[in-house]
Amino acid sequence: MPEFLSLVSPEAALSLLFSHIEPILSNEEIATEEALGRITAEDIISPQDLPEFRRSTVDGYALKAGDSHGASESLPAYLKLSGEVLMGAGPEFDLVSKECALIHTGGMLPENATAVVMLEDTQALEAGEVEIFRSVAEGENVIEIGEDVRKGGIVINRGTRLRPADIGGLLALGITKINTVTPPKFGIISSGDEVIPPDQKPKPGEVRDINSYTLGALISELGAEAIHYGIIPDNREDLRKIFKIGLGECDHLIVTAGSSASSRDLTADIMNELGDPGVLVHGVSIKPGKPTIFALAGPKVMIGLPGNPVSALVIAYILVKPIIQAYQGLEKRKISPSIPAKLTMNVPSLAGREDWIPVSLINEKGIFKAEPIFGRSNLIFLLAKADGLVKIPSATTGLEAGAAVSVRLF
Amino acid sequence: MPEFLSLVSPEAALSLLFSHIEPILSNEEIATEEALGRITAEDIISPQDLPEFRRSTVDGYALKAGDSHGASESLPAYLKLSGEVLMGAGPEFDLVSKECALIHTGGMLPENATAVVMLEDTQALEAGEVEIFRSVAEGENVIEIGEDVRKGGIVINRGTRLRPADIGGLLALGITKINTVTPPKFGIISSGDEVIPPDQKPKPGEVRDINSYTLGALISELGAEAIHYGIIPDNREDLRKIFKIGLGECDHLIVTAGSSASSRDLTADIMNELGDPGVLVHGVSIKPGKPTIFALAGPKVMIGLPGNPVSALVIAYILVKPIIQAYQGLEKRKISPSIPAKLTMNVPSLAGREDWIPVSLINEKGIFKAEPIFGRSNLIFLLAKADGLVKIPSATTGLEAGAAVSVRLF
Repeated sequence: MPEFLSLVSPEAALSLLFSHIEPILSNEEIATEEALGRITAEDIISPQDLPEFRRSTVDGYALKAGDSHGASESLPAYLKLSGEVLMGAGPEFDLVSKECALIHTGGMLPENATAVVMLEDTQALEAGEVEIFRSVAEGENVIEIGEDVRKGGIVINRGTRLRPADIGGLLALGITKINTVTPPKFGIISSGDEVIPPDQKPKPGEVRDINSYTLGALISELGAEAIHYGIIPDNREDLRKIFKIGLGECDHLIVTAGSSASSRDLTADIMNELGDPGVLVHGVSIKPGKPTIFALAGPKVMIGLPGNPVSALVIAYILVKPIIQAYQGLEKRKISPSIPAKLTMNVPSLAGREDWIPVSLINEKGIFKAEPIFGRSNLIFLLAKADGLVKIPSATTGLEAGAAVSVRLF
Repeated sequence: MPEFLSLVSPEAALSLLFSHIEPILSNEEIATEEALGRITAEDIISPQDLPEFRRSTVDGYALKAGDSHGASESLPAYLKLSGEVLMGAGPEFDLVSKECALIHTGGMLPENATAVVMLEDTQALEAGEVEIFRSVAEGENVIEIGEDVRKGGIVINRGTRLRPADIGGLLALGITKINTVTPPKFGIISSGDEVIPPDQKPKPGEVRDINSYTLGALISELGAEAIHYGIIPDNREDLRKIFKIGLGECDHLIVTAGSSASSRDLTADIMNELGDPGVLVHGVSIKPGKPTIFALAGPKVMIGLPGNPVSALVIAYILVKPIIQAYQGLEKRKISPSIPAKLTMNVPSLAGREDWIPVSLINEKGIFKAEPIFGRSNLIFLLAKADGLVKIPSATTGLEAGAAVSVRLF
């Protein structure tokens, strides 16, 4: 058997791929309003100060802070009411000493005003006078010009996946279009003589395609584009033809091999024929997913996954997801959505191989317990029942009940 | 000031709303392939066993388990090779005693075969004979009929948000259409005389709309539909008109009030006029977001949020998100995507009020530190820099540096 001559660790497999070539990204300008979940292709610079004028953070009276100094409940300051600042308008008056102006939250401070005293610390009197019961400091209850963002400052870094607050912030600056990474196209090929489309009734020995759809869904979920090439019979001629078409039309290719060892080798052979440097990784010391293949045809990544739908999807979460993210230009996030938990039972494993087991999480008074879901590795509904995956590190022969683990959520 | 006569806790505010009326949901049938992220409207029942035939989990030889009993490296069993099971086909032969058949991973077991011995534990001899070096038990390396799912069993519960593994599992069963909850329509109204659309240049005292876009993005992210009604001047006439239109066209309504106290009261007044029971909650003991309003017009929820974009978005994450999820029929998830962390500094707070502060997470050797992002509450880019929110419980006067907190990720 020519396969698996040299298994590499999952980390080494990714390093081999990433060290070989820097991901090439394309950009496109899109409406900021539509950019939720998209990834910035460049640092975004603020074209203006935000806010552009001094704003009150409370309902109250704008004044010169000094005019309130020493004021208290028992010894109020008395200021003349010079007017009201209307929302959405610049004040039509400046303040002079011993004057104040009624102002609302978000309103623009008049020239010369240096602070705002809250309404509840004041009392309006007849005859256009206001009692001030509290001393306020310079700048109190005021947002200064540029306090949120300074003109010329970087507001969002390149490689950031945009969230609701980012969209709002960009629009607050009048940035209505932004340069984002074009979602890379991943072609998906499902091979195997036994595989049929889901809308057909299987004859004896046939099974419906799962991989095209689980992988396609994950690719969409990650913000890339999945292009389906359907189910291809397990022979060199047909596979080579569709690999070529897929590689021509897409940025990258994911192939789930037929289940047998020979068809997995066939996948690697064809990938080697399609371009240089060809196959970089053939066999990873991971379970499930040992037959995983990473190859490059120039800048295009080709990934060969096991035909077993559970293995294919687990490997997609553990090894393909970081590739998709890198080829979207996503900067490494400092937080992976992992949950610390305690294993509920012993999990044996072979040393020298990284095991990933599906677990279901149980919340017991704020502490999570991770319950391994055991079962043969090709039961797709076992995976559907799981909340995430737990790694049994390569250096151990398993983990004991009660061990602290980190659950990588789906 | 008529507002905030009776503040309620955040939990009480949600209970008041949910106890008043059961969310009414509509359903629609959609293609399973397109259903990623959608929520099931009913329990989904398996129309068949999965698998429908006994499958091999390895490459090897199918045999009667008994024929291997006692076999070892030194004392192999010798079986006659009766043929090969081709992928995607039913075997054209039954096994008799002392016979075996070459089979590939996923292949269909011949009648009478009860186990599969792995290829590496065998050696093919000339003359159609196979040496077996290992004893296998009944059922070894075989997936039985219905082992993944039994016909008639529930495969996915009502109220489940569909993930890639679910999509794959459903299609494996030939379920190509499913009944899902129709995404509810949330109308969004941004009020305030100072607010202008993002593509316009603000005059003194004016600011660009943020709330329509942050809330719209969050609603989309949660899988509901956002309908935008734009920016409405802060007067009773205009507001009442647009509230009526929005309530007619949408399932629910979210309004960000003008910033001043009077305009917040105006929002509550109009909600009371629009239908029964009207305003249920007016003022929540939470910071930011005290002026939050929950109201009902029949089955339709109306939510009034503060005009301050940071307050509006924080409340949207903390209080509006559970409402949107309930009105999508989402069953309470047992896992909230929260990360345990240690606070890096003291955070003071007022007792009797729940505080939510934005934090940035720092990963130090696998332990997360939560660094509070301090700043005035209306700086939208402070929120954009944060990774999530930390609660300072109502019963405390703050948390000390080093305190264990749970960070609710955005």
